[in-house]
Amino acid sequence: MNLHGKSLLSGTAGQTGGKTFRAVNPATGEALAPDFHEASAAEVTRALDASAEAFADYRARSGAERARLLDAIATEIETLGDALLQRANAETGLPLARLTGERGRTCAQLRLFAQVVRDGSWVDARIDPALPDRQPLPRPDLRRMLLPLGPVVVFGSSNFPLAFSAAGGDTASALAAGCTVVVKAHRAHPGTGELVGGAITRAVASCGLPPGVFSLIHGGGATIGIAMVKHPATAAVGFTGSHAAGRALFDAAASRPHPIPVFAEMSSLNPVFLLPEAVRERSAAIATGLLGSFTLGVGQFCTKPGLVFVARGPEADALIAKLAEVVRAAPCGTMLTSGIREAFLGNRDKVTAIAGVQLIAAASAAANAAKTEAEPSVATTSVRTFLANPALATEAFGPFTLVVVAESVADFAACAAALEGQLTATVHGTAADLAAARPLLAALEQKAGRLVVNAFPTGVEVSPAMNHGGPYPATTDVRYTSVGTAAILRFARPVCYQGFADALLPAALQNANPLGLLRLVNGQPTRDAV
Amino acid sequence: MNLHGKSLLSGTAGQTGGKTFRAVNPATGEALAPDFHEASAAEVTRALDASAEAFADYRARSGAERARLLDAIATEIETLGDALLQRANAETGLPLARLTGERGRTCAQLRLFAQVVRDGSWVDARIDPALPDRQPLPRPDLRRMLLPLGPVVVFGSSNFPLAFSAAGGDTASALAAGCTVVVKAHRAHPGTGELVGGAITRAVASCGLPPGVFSLIHGGGATIGIAMVKHPATAAVGFTGSHAAGRALFDAAASRPHPIPVFAEMSSLNPVFLLPEAVRERSAAIATGLLGSFTLGVGQFCTKPGLVFVARGPEADALIAKLAEVVRAAPCGTMLTSGIREAFLGNRDKVTAIAGVQLIAAASAAANAAKTEAEPSVATTSVRTFLANPALATEAFGPFTLVVVAESVADFAACAAALEGQLTATVHGTAADLAAARPLLAALEQKAGRLVVNAFPTGVEVSPAMNHGGPYPATTDVRYTSVGTAAILRFARPVCYQGFADALLPAALQNANPLGLLRLVNGQPTRDAV
Repeated sequence: MNLHGKSLLSGTAGQTGGKTFRAVNPATGEALAPDFHEASAAEVTRALDASAEAFADYRARSGAERARLLDAIATEIETLGDALLQRANAETGLPLARLTGERGRTCAQLRLFAQVVRDGSWVDARIDPALPDRQPLPRPDLRRMLLPLGPVVVFGSSNFPLAFSAAGGDTASALAAGCTVVVKAHRAHPGTGELVGGAITRAVASCGLPPGVFSLIHGGGATIGIAMVKHPATAAVGFTGSHAAGRALFDAAASRPHPIPVFAEMSSLNPVFLLPEAVRERSAAIATGLLGSFTLGVGQFCTKPGLVFVARGPEADALIAKLAEVVRAAPCGTMLTSGIREAFLGNRDKVTAIAGVQLIAAASAAANAAKTEAEPSVATTSVRTFLANPALATEAFGPFTLVVVAESVADFAACAAALEGQLTATVHGTAADLAAARPLLAALEQKAGRLVVNAFPTGVEVSPAMNHGGPYPATTDVRYTSVGTAAILRFARPVCYQGFADALLPAALQNANPLGLLRLVNGQPTRDAV
Repeated sequence: MNLHGKSLLSGTAGQTGGKTFRAVNPATGEALAPDFHEASAAEVTRALDASAEAFADYRARSGAERARLLDAIATEIETLGDALLQRANAETGLPLARLTGERGRTCAQLRLFAQVVRDGSWVDARIDPALPDRQPLPRPDLRRMLLPLGPVVVFGSSNFPLAFSAAGGDTASALAAGCTVVVKAHRAHPGTGELVGGAITRAVASCGLPPGVFSLIHGGGATIGIAMVKHPATAAVGFTGSHAAGRALFDAAASRPHPIPVFAEMSSLNPVFLLPEAVRERSAAIATGLLGSFTLGVGQFCTKPGLVFVARGPEADALIAKLAEVVRAAPCGTMLTSGIREAFLGNRDKVTAIAGVQLIAAASAAANAAKTEAEPSVATTSVRTFLANPALATEAFGPFTLVVVAESVADFAACAAALEGQLTATVHGTAADLAAARPLLAALEQKAGRLVVNAFPTGVEVSPAMNHGGPYPATTDVRYTSVGTAAILRFARPVCYQGFADALLPAALQNANPLGLLRLVNGQPTRDAV
């Protein structure tokens, strides 16, 4: 598969001549051909101007047309075949089996969103027919639905080169909503970005849509990202990555003359609370389940459980001993980039250097720095040390977890209260444990976007009921999910039509209900005509 | 009706001893007893701490209990009787008939929201049952619904002392969502605030709810408002007022360590486009309708039409002549405060001082400054002058409108493109006019939250299909309405429950569907049990 290393600017390749960079295979340290060319400021402007122009067309396309595009993107990605997986594997070190699964998830996600927009009811159509005889004043005819926001800037993530990058969840939901998209390709996997961006470009063309519907920008550092966020045409931003980068984008968006929403998914410790009967009944199973979850993908999931709370006692000791045992036997893994590995080791060392924290086990196998490897490890501390050191609630993105030993479950409430916003919070318990833990569950409801019982938080389903979000700093907007069909709602806004003749209304709001939508008529849900 | 002039801090009166101020009757200039006592920083903290504490209880109350509170507030407001209307009239200069209507709207709004939360389907419950046999991986049981955000700070508006102040739309929607509320009473009508705040306090008590569910703060200037927005317990902000004040609150919220959403409704010109056949057919009716709309409430509505576009020609001349005629005959009116009057005159003078703008008519009656009166007036200009002077798109909050005369309707597109975000945009046209104006309508869809055909934008219905919002600077969050039942959604966030036993789930998500909600099960809407 030949790569040209250029940005994709509404269907055409960008320029060469500026700075270049290469992807690096983290498993070998090898710099991968070809050179990638950083886009210029003028190219960023060109991409967003084209996006704004294409939006004027694409926004008015029917749900069926948008669905056709999403389906076509999925097919084009599949048509890339093994070459895509091989390039992604070389750029990320993620195993081919994982990437095969991620490609399946990416295409299923596109097709699920296609289904949602083909169905169309997501636009939340509401009709309050005129009441000409109402006293003291007549009511006009009012009809409201959701319309797309405008051009969306998407920042590809490091840890999901397919499912949360060029054609990932943010792009799929923006295109589903009727928005055009400009992707900032992740610098660690630019070739994957070019391949997927090419697939999207071909799908846009084959669907007869204006090429400005999609662009993909290569670039480095914060400058180009901030420029994309600050461009006047940009209407919203999707981002998955670090807290520092996400906050910088949020601040840039909030300080615009016209502020825009930023959906940044940033940082989460994903605390796990282990209740006493569950620990007594199945400490070994919990220990091995925990190992599997915090080392999955070499600990590089945003839902990795990085904090575990357990109450002191012989069963807790047994669980911790088992956890130490399985950690020692666990294999090392190649991390996504050397930068991520260094940040991981730095954050882990910061945690374990705090007085009162003990590193109790690490994988026996030696991590090979030349292969960008990190070894799984686990530390313990007391509730007192945890509550006294807010730094212990800093995410260490990688295969590490910290077990906090409480004096009793009564301490869990204070621990929950001390937590920052989280994507997930997990509780293991028997029915009796859980019945007694209702106050803890209520506290966690206020801290996290998803509560998990008797399972582990890694593994995020793409479905209507998923919520992948949470209070800051888990995300910058607690009101939305970035995974699942509700993610489309991030990129839409309501508009009300008053006194419109039927023929002038969007199809979704016409009397006959030609799209067959579920609508709220006089506040009551119905598929009937008006 | 005795007023004590103190803040209402979770059911108890605040302290005296700090700065005081009095309301002023704008129709007489008289300072009204009693003195009102500005809350201290410690009282702000006390109110928000109590709000956070009460939230832990109130958030878990059923929809039926929240509905009972909303209904009780409406009843308590009605029980205040004429004393409320008289105080509001003295503090705002708004006529008793208008205030009677506004009270009706306020109580109807509370009762409509009660109905919505009693019905309960607004929580958008979604259930994806477990698929234990799915390949390659089983799907866990996932259930999602909307939960309240937390304590909400509400800033009362100057122009709706009842419908958008202490017990107005923001408070009603926050309480409906399950949030507790701390109101910053508007300084121009503190007695009205105290009366309504007392009604809410009594309703909270009679419903057996913790007193911290509601507090009302008196204070002046920006300091106390910023302190309320910056308090760590504050989870969201509702505001209606000027662009400068709204932006200051938005910036304060965005720069918090943990940013929070701000729903500020700020500034809108509410452009009206007059298409040629409509002008030909009914220029006199349009002129008188326009006068009625831009002078309603002495021009102090956020939806006041402040910009009118018409294409040059004899019919346009006739329309403008008629408008001048009815403006000259219109009465002067008392504005809400002397500060608002001065700002209005300043903004109007700024507009009419621009070269190429002609003040063509003002009411013949002399405005009496001692009665805080302003006279209706109208100016005209050319498209060229309009496009060259962005200052002409500055809101003059008061009884003034600017007619922009285009060379032809072909200029309307450029005028629409030059507009900032608006709450409303209006088009008058015959069926043939409108059929030819689809591109204009599409452009206006992107500029405004509500499009009005052949009517005027003042008069905002409180109903499911209403959208009172729009792109910045009309509001700080284009994704939400501040009027109508969808306003509740501003104060809610989704939470997903994974793997929960039925008994541990909120009633909205239990298998049997005990609340009878419309839910999305496997993506399909149904009221059936799971």
